Amino acid sequence: MTTVKGFSFAARAAGIRKSGRLDLGLIFSRQPARSAGVFTTNKVQAAPVLLTAPRVADGLCQAVLVNSGNANACTGEAGLQDALSCGRMVADRLGIDERLVAVSSTGVIGHPLPMPLLEKAIPELPGALSEDAVADVATAMMTTDSFSKISSRQSSGDRPYTLLGVAKGAGMIHPNMATMLAFVVTDACVDRAFLRQALHQAVENSFNIITVDRDTSTNDMVLIMANGEAQSPEIVADTSAGREFAVLLREVLLDLAKMIVRDGEGATKLVHVKVDGAVDSSDARRVAYSVATSNLVKTAFFGEDANWGRIIAAVGYSGAQVDPDNITICFGDVPVVQGGLGTGPEREEEATAVLKQAEFAVHIDLGLGDGRAEYYTSDLTYDYVKINADYRT
Amino acid sequence: MTTVKGFSFAARAAGIRKSGRLDLGLIFSRQPARSAGVFTTNKVQAAPVLLTAPRVADGLCQAVLVNSGNANACTGEAGLQDALSCGRMVADRLGIDERLVAVSSTGVIGHPLPMPLLEKAIPELPGALSEDAVADVATAMMTTDSFSKISSRQSSGDRPYTLLGVAKGAGMIHPNMATMLAFVVTDACVDRAFLRQALHQAVENSFNIITVDRDTSTNDMVLIMANGEAQSPEIVADTSAGREFAVLLREVLLDLAKMIVRDGEGATKLVHVKVDGAVDSSDARRVAYSVATSNLVKTAFFGEDANWGRIIAAVGYSGAQVDPDNITICFGDVPVVQGGLGTGPEREEEATAVLKQAEFAVHIDLGLGDGRAEYYTSDLTYDYVKINADYRT
Repeated sequence: MTTVKGFSFAARAAGIRKSGRLDLGLIFSRQPARSAGVFTTNKVQAAPVLLTAPRVADGLCQAVLVNSGNANACTGEAGLQDALSCGRMVADRLGIDERLVAVSSTGVIGHPLPMPLLEKAIPELPGALSEDAVADVATAMMTTDSFSKISSRQSSGDRPYTLLGVAKGAGMIHPNMATMLAFVVTDACVDRAFLRQALHQAVENSFNIITVDRDTSTNDMVLIMANGEAQSPEIVADTSAGREFAVLLREVLLDLAKMIVRDGEGATKLVHVKVDGAVDSSDARRVAYSVATSNLVKTAFFGEDANWGRIIAAVGYSGAQVDPDNITICFGDVPVVQGGLGTGPEREEEATAVLKQAEFAVHIDLGLGDGRAEYYTSDLTYDYVKINADYRT
Repeated sequence: MTTVKGFSFAARAAGIRKSGRLDLGLIFSRQPARSAGVFTTNKVQAAPVLLTAPRVADGLCQAVLVNSGNANACTGEAGLQDALSCGRMVADRLGIDERLVAVSSTGVIGHPLPMPLLEKAIPELPGALSEDAVADVATAMMTTDSFSKISSRQSSGDRPYTLLGVAKGAGMIHPNMATMLAFVVTDACVDRAFLRQALHQAVENSFNIITVDRDTSTNDMVLIMANGEAQSPEIVADTSAGREFAVLLREVLLDLAKMIVRDGEGATKLVHVKVDGAVDSSDARRVAYSVATSNLVKTAFFGEDANWGRIIAAVGYSGAQVDPDNITICFGDVPVVQGGLGTGPEREEEATAVLKQAEFAVHIDLGLGDGRAEYYTSDLTYDYVKINADYRT
């Protein structure tokens, strides 16, 4: 298991989830780490988001407490007090300033946190901290996830640093971060402003180009903590070291994002939607988004049906500038539409073979300009409906 | 069966659909009728839309040919020629100007119309015209519809006129008109400009406030034909007769729209989403749309789960101005959220009883201003996935 200098991890089954699974995790840096965060854009924000966002904005963080099973959302002033108490318990036991503690929750909305359970479990966490227990934290964050999500990268150079990320998410995944939590720790030393900038860019090109459905949640957050313990020189913007850091961070987040799509509720396919030839990149993104979020396209993927008519319809209503006669669509390498017209039944048969794979690409060329964009999406299945119709029962 | 003076109807099983069902219909007015139309906003438009939109823009129409089983979309120049030929065959047999014929198609995208079948069936239609065969045309328009959709209204007064509408739609229903066809005939005499204006307003408040999923199609159209045969005085804007006409037309279209939602692919519920208290009506519409189109909300309806957390999340990401502490949510008459907080398990139990009904309302009050809006939506079910995964096989 990957370790990162100065970071340790612990998890407990606090009983918040009835299943008796791990549901409470702690990430700790022995030194205060420079930090940055990206938070849900939902106007209804859960207590942990309201508490943590201003703390992270200060640029330092030393511990992250995360629980699953209860979102502590729509819980009013009492919920905010509960989040505050949880953070304070963590700070007390670790002997650090409570403002250095981030708090994060995911689960059902509208129920108060079961404080007696947390009061019992939180004090047990610091004694259990271990540098190679990141997998337990990844597990404790899971809700409807069917597997835990971890990714890491190491830098080049003679004093390499490590980036290690964990994430949670399977349902409600949508651009602008829906019930999705991700925490990245690194022992690199990173300029504060650059850390923030690199995180925002990496989120934009990872978590914000995935979609399982179109809902965004009250609880999402992505946090990065950089404690500098690798003793590598400070990384700043507009240098080769800065570019390397940005690339590695995006790779970690994209790994996690793709795992989330692959684990989309009920999903059986990971589909890479690539758009070229739009008049500009905003238009390309509109088209990629429109195709990747169409329920009809997604059910056709589930049906392994090379139904390009639904794709061309989604291109047409995307709002992007489109000339129907210029559109090319490929499933994998197989062109099914050229110049806006179908290429015939033989090609469709080849395309159907592409759709039978667990992962494939759909490539749309609008033939108008240089605008490009991409999205990752899943299929829409019986199990999506089953999981979401039964979630609380 | 309702009849409308001067209008007659015919349908045939032309063999376009393999099932041998009625799949070709004709609506005929013995006099050229004043007409208006609303067409898909999709930038990829099917041949019949490209042909018919400019004809209707001229303001007169005497016949509508409609087929199911094939959309004649993404069929290029050949598809346009096919649509033209179909219209010409109708005009020849009826002895009218071909520019007075509207052509309309719905079904699979990307396959050429089976012209030999149409060349055989179209000439049979004029001889079969009957004033009380509207139900056959409604049936011939169906694709994945499980029932045909007809509605009518009669005006007050001593020379009453009738409005009679038929529609088709079950999947891909979405604001801005997705694979949805509707034709309304009336023997009223209506000022041309007012007819157009009344149709646009009625569509905005009927077909554009329903949603089953978020896809819009290449083929949608709503046409109205008014032949004046009721001998009532000409109806113009800003009069009591004009207001009555607008109300009756909206009622007919809303009837049809609600039938479409009720027949949503796999749907088991018709849900009326009502929003009050937004800062303005655009914001209210944003909220209603966001809730009505959320897959998570729609699967919760299917699961008969009073999961208001998903509704409040959808309100929060709608883009509307929202103060979480002011939000009230009711299922039917049962408040489940007040001041942004849940009202407790007893109320949720009462709300669950509301959700078990086939039709119910969800009422969201933002508590900020006077903005109001409404939407009709369905639940998202196993059968939605099944129907759309298997559609072409």
